Amino acid sequence: MENLKHLIKTRRSIRRFKNRNVSRKILLKIIEAGINAPSGLNNQPWKFQTVTEAGLKKTISGFTLSRYSKIICEAPALILVYLDERKIYDRDKDIMSAGACIENMLLYIHSEKMGAVWLGEILNRKKQLQKKINRQKGLELAAVIAVGYPGEKPRYPGRRKLSSFLLEG
Amino acid sequence: MENLKHLIKTRRSIRRFKNRNVSRKILLKIIEAGINAPSGLNNQPWKFQTVTEAGLKKTISGFTLSRYSKIICEAPALILVYLDERKIYDRDKDIMSAGACIENMLLYIHSEKMGAVWLGEILNRKKQLQKKINRQKGLELAAVIAVGYPGEKPRYPGRRKLSSFLLEG
Repeated sequence: MENLKHLIKTRRSIRRFKNRNVSRKILLKIIEAGINAPSGLNNQPWKFQTVTEAGLKKTISGFTLSRYSKIICEAPALILVYLDERKIYDRDKDIMSAGACIENMLLYIHSEKMGAVWLGEILNRKKQLQKKINRQKGLELAAVIAVGYPGEKPRYPGRRKLSSFLLEG
Repeated sequence: MENLKHLIKTRRSIRRFKNRNVSRKILLKIIEAGINAPSGLNNQPWKFQTVTEAGLKKTISGFTLSRYSKIICEAPALILVYLDERKIYDRDKDIMSAGACIENMLLYIHSEKMGAVWLGEILNRKKQLQKKINRQKGLELAAVIAVGYPGEKPRYPGRRKLSSFLLEG
């Protein structure tokens, strides 16, 4: 049992992992948390690719900067999140739903005492990457999530003051 | 105390509310859950406007279809989520972060036995709406969340089978 507010506040981006595998069963549970996010007209505009094989991680890592490629190679597992272009009804709203889906996965991972980092820099070369790693058409890479058991305890990176985010009513 | 998996699975879009006010204190707690979402380079690219005043709800409701305008007028409170263009570093990633922020708020609302619906149709006329309701520049409306105490118990709208979302490794 856990408290949601505490979970939200204590989730951190984990970039170093223990040398411990993540089972396929757990990866599917993480994705199940993701697909229960809301989407516009319940269109569920996402697809997922799990990667645990070292050679494929190495290939993927070649499409990002070295500080991120290290994370990709060392993470026990990756979850690649795609937008499914056949399901899309409004790109902005579908991307927002993908963000909701990813947050569900990150919170679920944290609630299981695992850790993850949401990698975005790799999107800069997403077309080249997709050509290399899958031939399925109609997909657009939205994020790469590196997943494992935490090998570090990062400090809270902080947030600006709540009042700084508020417009006057 | 609550179980995250259960919270994620039992969250519903709530479109009918009890005639009970939502306090400003609670609205700020909801937004606090939102701002603890991750964002690229921790840029926190969001702003929030809370609305509880009937006249302003009425004005906002004029920019959407009648089935949504009814929800907007009847909801005890609205949280308008904006992208803060001064903080943006990559529009797609920032919109995804807004989605993560919104999911935190929706889960937090549900965990407090309240209810909400994420309204997107209103974005079709966001420029006109923004001109009418605030003069602050550099903001882009990303979502309107209607919030209150549930006045209905919607059925689970369902998800496609988990396996249908998986690409082969």
